[in-house]
Amino acid sequence: MKNINIRELAQQLNLSVSTVSKALNDSHEISDETKKRVLKTAATLNYVPNPYASSLRGRKSKNIGVVIPEVADSFFSIAINGIESVAKEKGYHVLICLTHESFENEKNILKEFQGGRVDGVIMSVSRETIQSDHISDLISNGVPLILFDRVCEDVETAKITTDDFESSYKATEHLVAQGCKKIAFLGISKSLSLNSKRQEGYVQALNDHDLKSGNKHIIHCTNELKPNYRLVKKLLQQKNRPDGIVASMEKLTTPVYTACADLNLSIPQDVKMVCFSNLETASILNPSLTTITQPAFEMGKTAASILFRALKKTNLSLTKSSIVIPSSLMIRSSTT
Amino acid sequence: MKNINIRELAQQLNLSVSTVSKALNDSHEISDETKKRVLKTAATLNYVPNPYASSLRGRKSKNIGVVIPEVADSFFSIAINGIESVAKEKGYHVLICLTHESFENEKNILKEFQGGRVDGVIMSVSRETIQSDHISDLISNGVPLILFDRVCEDVETAKITTDDFESSYKATEHLVAQGCKKIAFLGISKSLSLNSKRQEGYVQALNDHDLKSGNKHIIHCTNELKPNYRLVKKLLQQKNRPDGIVASMEKLTTPVYTACADLNLSIPQDVKMVCFSNLETASILNPSLTTITQPAFEMGKTAASILFRALKKTNLSLTKSSIVIPSSLMIRSSTT
Repeated sequence: MKNINIRELAQQLNLSVSTVSKALNDSHEISDETKKRVLKTAATLNYVPNPYASSLRGRKSKNIGVVIPEVADSFFSIAINGIESVAKEKGYHVLICLTHESFENEKNILKEFQGGRVDGVIMSVSRETIQSDHISDLISNGVPLILFDRVCEDVETAKITTDDFESSYKATEHLVAQGCKKIAFLGISKSLSLNSKRQEGYVQALNDHDLKSGNKHIIHCTNELKPNYRLVKKLLQQKNRPDGIVASMEKLTTPVYTACADLNLSIPQDVKMVCFSNLETASILNPSLTTITQPAFEMGKTAASILFRALKKTNLSLTKSSIVIPSSLMIRSSTT
Repeated sequence: MKNINIRELAQQLNLSVSTVSKALNDSHEISDETKKRVLKTAATLNYVPNPYASSLRGRKSKNIGVVIPEVADSFFSIAINGIESVAKEKGYHVLICLTHESFENEKNILKEFQGGRVDGVIMSVSRETIQSDHISDLISNGVPLILFDRVCEDVETAKITTDDFESSYKATEHLVAQGCKKIAFLGISKSLSLNSKRQEGYVQALNDHDLKSGNKHIIHCTNELKPNYRLVKKLLQQKNRPDGIVASMEKLTTPVYTACADLNLSIPQDVKMVCFSNLETASILNPSLTTITQPAFEMGKTAASILFRALKKTNLSLTKSSIVIPSSLMIRSSTT
């Protein structure tokens, strides 16, 4: 069925375009009866408001944008569900855009969003993002943006994060308690503040337990399976190989497990592993994986709730709305 | 930095708005030198075209929409990468919208897309979708739409699928060869043609090997972990419990493995399992999982390539562009 425009709809109803427009916008000038009649006919005749025309008149797009590095990571796929749970309630569509960990892509997406396609944005930055002018530009153009998980410290907005320092500290301390003496840290990217906090938590725990961390045991991984496998294998072939691993990224699980199998190292007897991960299959891996499970759904939901508050009340102090939601250590067979 | 509009840009350049507009649209009326000058100044002053105004003048949105049930499924997250690999090359943004398996959501998203936000759509239908007027409506409004993986047979457009019947037949035959006598089929939804084909492949293989399939051994699962766990547990507690399972959905892995563990049934000794799955962790599960691995990246890439051909050449026969790309059976320890 072809959709009709507002002029055709008005003709069908024998009303003026202005009356129909007011009825569709729920104006107090129009009677409830007329509103009902307009809405019913609009639905029957498949009337779709032209978002471009509406936007030029200053109406909202009723879309929010979610900008994340990827979806092949349980944290992000669960966080999206949290965001959508709020957006659905508010009658908004969620447009998800992926940066694939590229700063260039991230800048292009935010530039595109300046045009008014979305009313607000929820974002987790790419591993390459080292400056934040593109984010400040969008905000100064009147599009509120909330950061979650991977944030830029210097942007003045709400940041929904988890306790990266503390949970990494706790994970490292757990490995120490299980007898590990040489613990390695596998990071995502030097430029991410989230990564720095996790690394600091790891270093602090080692210091507090009189275990020195050599630089050799801090590795920054890539985003690809095969290069990560090679990095991990090289680490485990060192003479002074680690007996414990704190991994900062879910997708390090397969390379670590595979490299250990290929080198005849047993998990947890030879190498113990704990991973920041929301993998549903963590409990059925061989062996089951000890994880730092992030509150992914809750973080997405909280970010969306704050964004909708900002859309309603433009003088809301976003910086003061920042929240830290703690992660939990789930101990399984890869460390015990 | 605040972005400027075309009028301000023209002022800065000391040119007319019309000349700037023509230069930005690469008109032959404008000299290369002027075009370069306009583009350079536009970049420096952060000029962002207003997509709404552009669209009213009939220009393209340079967005394509991807409508899928969810991203917490490796098939879809990999397929997105295939789609994006083509879109990036063409200078298009990809807007991902999730239906969360709801027909209502799916209809709303396509209705929203009628407004001109996207130039074309790539879609995999929800488990609830039993009719396709919403899809035909969008297509008849001039937005080309390509279906992939989960398709509606009656929509006249390009469909990118895998060999669901054949691969399910092959998987069932593999279980028979491994000695299974009572093989169960765990489906997604009765209404999906993809599911019917997989179920038919399973039934055909049983018939060809003189194994009768009782209705009790065909189950349609939900989209949630806990109800699926209960369904699977009930199935495995039957007196005449299956000794083999063909699962049509990646997310059945955790409930099957967990139910078997809780019932003290060993995989593969007591129950063998093969699953339609692109899980990266399939090889490190306990035991490693035999999968029917779908060509997810290739399917996404192919769908996007055909969509861009359709955007360029409006008289392209989409129905004739349908393609079937075969899956492969990866035999691992859950069946051997």
